Amino acid sequence: MKSNKKPYFRNRIIISQFIMSKILTVGTVAFDEIITPFGETGKILGGSASYIAMAAAKLNPDVGIVSVVGNDFPDAYLQKFTDRQIDISGIEKLDNEKTFYWKGKYHNDLNKRDTLVTEVNCLAHFNPVVPDTYKDAGFLMLGNLHPAIQQSVIDQMTTRPKLIALDTMNFWMDTAWDDLMKVLKNIDILIINDEEARQLSQDYSLVRAAQKIQDMGPKYLIIKKGEHGALLFHGKNIFFAPALPLEEVFDPTGAGDTFAGGFVGKLAQLEDVSFNAMKNAVICGSNLASFTVEKFGTERLENLTKSEIQDRLQDFINLTQFEIELV
Amino acid sequence: MKSNKKPYFRNRIIISQFIMSKILTVGTVAFDEIITPFGETGKILGGSASYIAMAAAKLNPDVGIVSVVGNDFPDAYLQKFTDRQIDISGIEKLDNEKTFYWKGKYHNDLNKRDTLVTEVNCLAHFNPVVPDTYKDAGFLMLGNLHPAIQQSVIDQMTTRPKLIALDTMNFWMDTAWDDLMKVLKNIDILIINDEEARQLSQDYSLVRAAQKIQDMGPKYLIIKKGEHGALLFHGKNIFFAPALPLEEVFDPTGAGDTFAGGFVGKLAQLEDVSFNAMKNAVICGSNLASFTVEKFGTERLENLTKSEIQDRLQDFINLTQFEIELV
Repeated sequence: MKSNKKPYFRNRIIISQFIMSKILTVGTVAFDEIITPFGETGKILGGSASYIAMAAAKLNPDVGIVSVVGNDFPDAYLQKFTDRQIDISGIEKLDNEKTFYWKGKYHNDLNKRDTLVTEVNCLAHFNPVVPDTYKDAGFLMLGNLHPAIQQSVIDQMTTRPKLIALDTMNFWMDTAWDDLMKVLKNIDILIINDEEARQLSQDYSLVRAAQKIQDMGPKYLIIKKGEHGALLFHGKNIFFAPALPLEEVFDPTGAGDTFAGGFVGKLAQLEDVSFNAMKNAVICGSNLASFTVEKFGTERLENLTKSEIQDRLQDFINLTQFEIELV
Repeated sequence: MKSNKKPYFRNRIIISQFIMSKILTVGTVAFDEIITPFGETGKILGGSASYIAMAAAKLNPDVGIVSVVGNDFPDAYLQKFTDRQIDISGIEKLDNEKTFYWKGKYHNDLNKRDTLVTEVNCLAHFNPVVPDTYKDAGFLMLGNLHPAIQQSVIDQMTTRPKLIALDTMNFWMDTAWDDLMKVLKNIDILIINDEEARQLSQDYSLVRAAQKIQDMGPKYLIIKKGEHGALLFHGKNIFFAPALPLEEVFDPTGAGDTFAGGFVGKLAQLEDVSFNAMKNAVICGSNLASFTVEKFGTERLENLTKSEIQDRLQDFINLTQFEIELV
């Protein structure tokens, strides 16, 4: 049964995986201070890129971050990334600036929050530079930033990624509409929440909103509905991933970014960007997000194991899969 | 290949179906007057039992209603039931009373409504009498009524139904708590919405609410979340049926009762009250409800065909079913 072809073939797969499944994420690495009915955190590691990268790294070994921090950012926090084999060569440290800082307080039902403090700090000077080693990344996840900055990252890629995903928010719709419209034409999938989808499309119906947003550029769209799950759209196809019903949501911070990181991480792992692969990936994103909300900040995600993810996948299967009975 | 056993065996199945799949529903048969951003209806057929029976009758041929109407209730509306082989021998007509009447106006997003008029009329004198032919019904669906009235119906059954399902509302929790607690001990499944589940359990978390409510009696629980779908609970098992994402919701009136009718109708059709059968049944309930909201009142349900239900089941399969990929 020995064959010369086998080693060559196996080798080829390994090389292919190495190139294709590289994930680059661009977003904030920051300080969060969170108040919930369950307690207060003080300053902890936060930021969209932190959650995205940690989630994606659960599924795929090669994840890099492009971001910026200030001179007050502790090495111990950077080590949280490097300990998980996340490449931080794209995280710039500005000597004369402080790190982006957000403080917020959640209402009792945890569905609403008030921002108490936002200090933009170093983020005002963020000029992302993609390391050469990530200019050929197969998967690019652009966290919520000014759309012109998101576009500048796309422009630095030497090969068109297999998938470009983008998050944005109402603020950029209000203040940078033209830049947002431009970058939307250059991405494959937009990942936003229901409120953002309604504002972007000016339509209350999410089904019609999805059609209008696809006309703006992205051929795929995910609309996140928090505790009510997430909808994946592509043309006339719709798939729904519920959020896992939990006894207690402890801290919702980072759930949406964890979802996005899990989604892109799963696609990179599968090396597949078909609609069927995306079904799998939104379930995976929802799976990882269900862990993030169990503890403050990135704490739960940091220590999450493959077998915990696997067990919870079974919960999602039990929650959604049924035997077809024809009428 | 001929055998004497075959006709006997087939006959036995028919008899068994006839007895076991009989559905009795108790609830209101009423006038509704509905205002939405899309128009106004004037007085049309409404009431919980109307939606429940029409939905159940799509799946199962033997459905009976116990209810009460006034002297102003038109025969043409009763004929909507008899035309669909729904037994109305349990609908009492009170000579000196008018029919229950509700008028409501929906907000622009159709998620909230204001009650403009409620005239209880004949319902104040409702003393349900179960026809002899339905005292052995295998499936009993108790629409939202005073819990003591719901209990009086259970007491009239000569054989314990295979399944007793019950709907209730916040008003009875406020005004008839002891009666509600009593009837909850005698049913199998409670079908209520998220707000009602939270009030009944005094717990915001739906997962914990479900545990507390099961401790009150019903071993199964459905929590309806409107456009966000419905959760089925049994012990530690949870199943989720999404609502179908629609371009337009035209009139949400009766969606919850249609869901309940479709749920019970499907179980009766399957002659199965296992958790697996219930998964099927909540998908079926959500399926039928997705039609009801497409037009005013019972209009869409009245003319709904089996093949339309079948086609939409495929939409639910596409929406929720995925290939399992292990991490």
